[in-house]
Amino acid sequence: APTRAPGPAAEASPGPWTQPVAVLADTATSTDGPGSTGFAPPQSLTDLVRDMRPAAMAPAPVPTGRSMLPLGQFRDTFIIAVDDEGIAIIDQHVAHERVLFEQVMERLTAGPLESQRLLTPLVLELSPAERQALGQHQVALTRLGFEVEEFGGDSVCVAAVPALVPIAASEVTIRALALDLDGFEEGGPVDQALRQVAATTACHAAVKAHDRLTPEKMVYILDELRRTAHSSVCPHGRPVVLRLSRREIERRFERI
Amino acid sequence: APTRAPGPAAEASPGPWTQPVAVLADTATSTDGPGSTGFAPPQSLTDLVRDMRPAAMAPAPVPTGRSMLPLGQFRDTFIIAVDDEGIAIIDQHVAHERVLFEQVMERLTAGPLESQRLLTPLVLELSPAERQALGQHQVALTRLGFEVEEFGGDSVCVAAVPALVPIAASEVTIRALALDLDGFEEGGPVDQALRQVAATTACHAAVKAHDRLTPEKMVYILDELRRTAHSSVCPHGRPVVLRLSRREIERRFERI
Ligand SMILES: [Zn+2]
Ligand SMILES: [Zn+2]
Repeated sequence: APTRAPGPAAEASPGPWTQPVAVLADTATSTDGPGSTGFAPPQSLTDLVRDMRPAAMAPAPVPTGRSMLPLGQFRDTFIIAVDDEGIAIIDQHVAHERVLFEQVMERLTAGPLESQRLLTPLVLELSPAERQALGQHQVALTRLGFEVEEFGGDSVCVAAVPALVPIAASEVTIRALALDLDGFEEGGPVDQALRQVAATTACHAAVKAHDRLTPEKMVYILDELRRTAHSSVCPHGRPVVLRLSRREIERRFERI
Repeated sequence: APTRAPGPAAEASPGPWTQPVAVLADTATSTDGPGSTGFAPPQSLTDLVRDMRPAAMAPAPVPTGRSMLPLGQFRDTFIIAVDDEGIAIIDQHVAHERVLFEQVMERLTAGPLESQRLLTPLVLELSPAERQALGQHQVALTRLGFEVEEFGGDSVCVAAVPALVPIAASEVTIRALALDLDGFEEGGPVDQALRQVAATTACHAAVKAHDRLTPEKMVYILDELRRTAHSSVCPHGRPVVLRLSRREIERRFERI
């Protein structure tokens, strides 16, 4: 479409860039005051830029059969991906945590999780309540692949952790488990403790915010996210994906 | 942060995913009806996804000194880029058109634009009004690097076009110029005609929607967009950049 260059008259009067009312005419959901929608003075990049402040959430369309293609990361914390229907921003930690949780719950139906022995057992000092919490949920911990025993005094000894937990994350995972299991009653359903152990383990085995990811890792996380979503066990937690639809993008750029 | 696995009770009652009111508590701008904010039933990817429908526009923060890093394209039409302060979506045609327009206006202050001769002059049939429009604005056309002459009958002959216009785009550019200049008065300011010729030329020399871009081309467009923004001559036209701020992203993912 040809661009009409503004004449001197058009330059003197405020153009569409300074008339947000016209721009927002079809945006019924805007309730910003007049002060907050005004555009900044011309002659800077600010004029080129329109801020997207997503103010409303709505059910996203059911995604197509194809996976999203990851383009890269924002602040090494969010994966930015596209498919035909829009742009998606994915919280990499929450997404991977969810994927691992679903995988663990799925595998547990076939038997205990794969375990890895520590070359040097880990001896940790814990509070009495924390030691008790671990002791009371031995069944769940063993099924996940943990080997934790009382070591005398304030200590426990960790001889093995699930294969999916990075060795370096063993201590922080055990401490988190002790905290998260504290408060579960001894006689409570094993299933509930099992889910908690799986959730805590998934959290500590997952990539973290500020981790640089390879393209392959991003593809893996997005593919698994799609795959495990259909057998969703845990619909709770923080948002995993934000989507900006193709239609919204095209509308914003006045292409439709 | 450890994920609390939901207990059986939590599973039976609606969790936060089905309580948009709680999620939107701090979103004063939401005016969606209760029906439109409900989440879809669990057990599908829809649960993981929150739709971003940007409902309000606001002045974007003045960008930092650094350029945006392009990650890739969406539908070969929009460049997706990041900097420390957020994610940006750039309409590649509008951005490049703007860059070329600013470059042309800048170079014209030093003299006529660089021209390229066509190996075979282009003979085009035009309407009388179109031929007249081109004839009346010879000064502007020549300064931009066009050589267009009456060829007898309904035809004009194009011997040269600006170097920045792809040869293959010569005909469509001349036809667009004839249309866009039609209606400008003969005695009008040369400056205004010059701006129109520059705008039309920039539009036809720019990359188009659905053009696959190399990473280098994306970097070039974004860098030039930043550079020329400060000498902005033409603040009109369609939006060039949509930004989603880091703060908004982190708020959406409940990270702040
Ligand atoms: Zn976590
Ligand atoms: Zn254009």
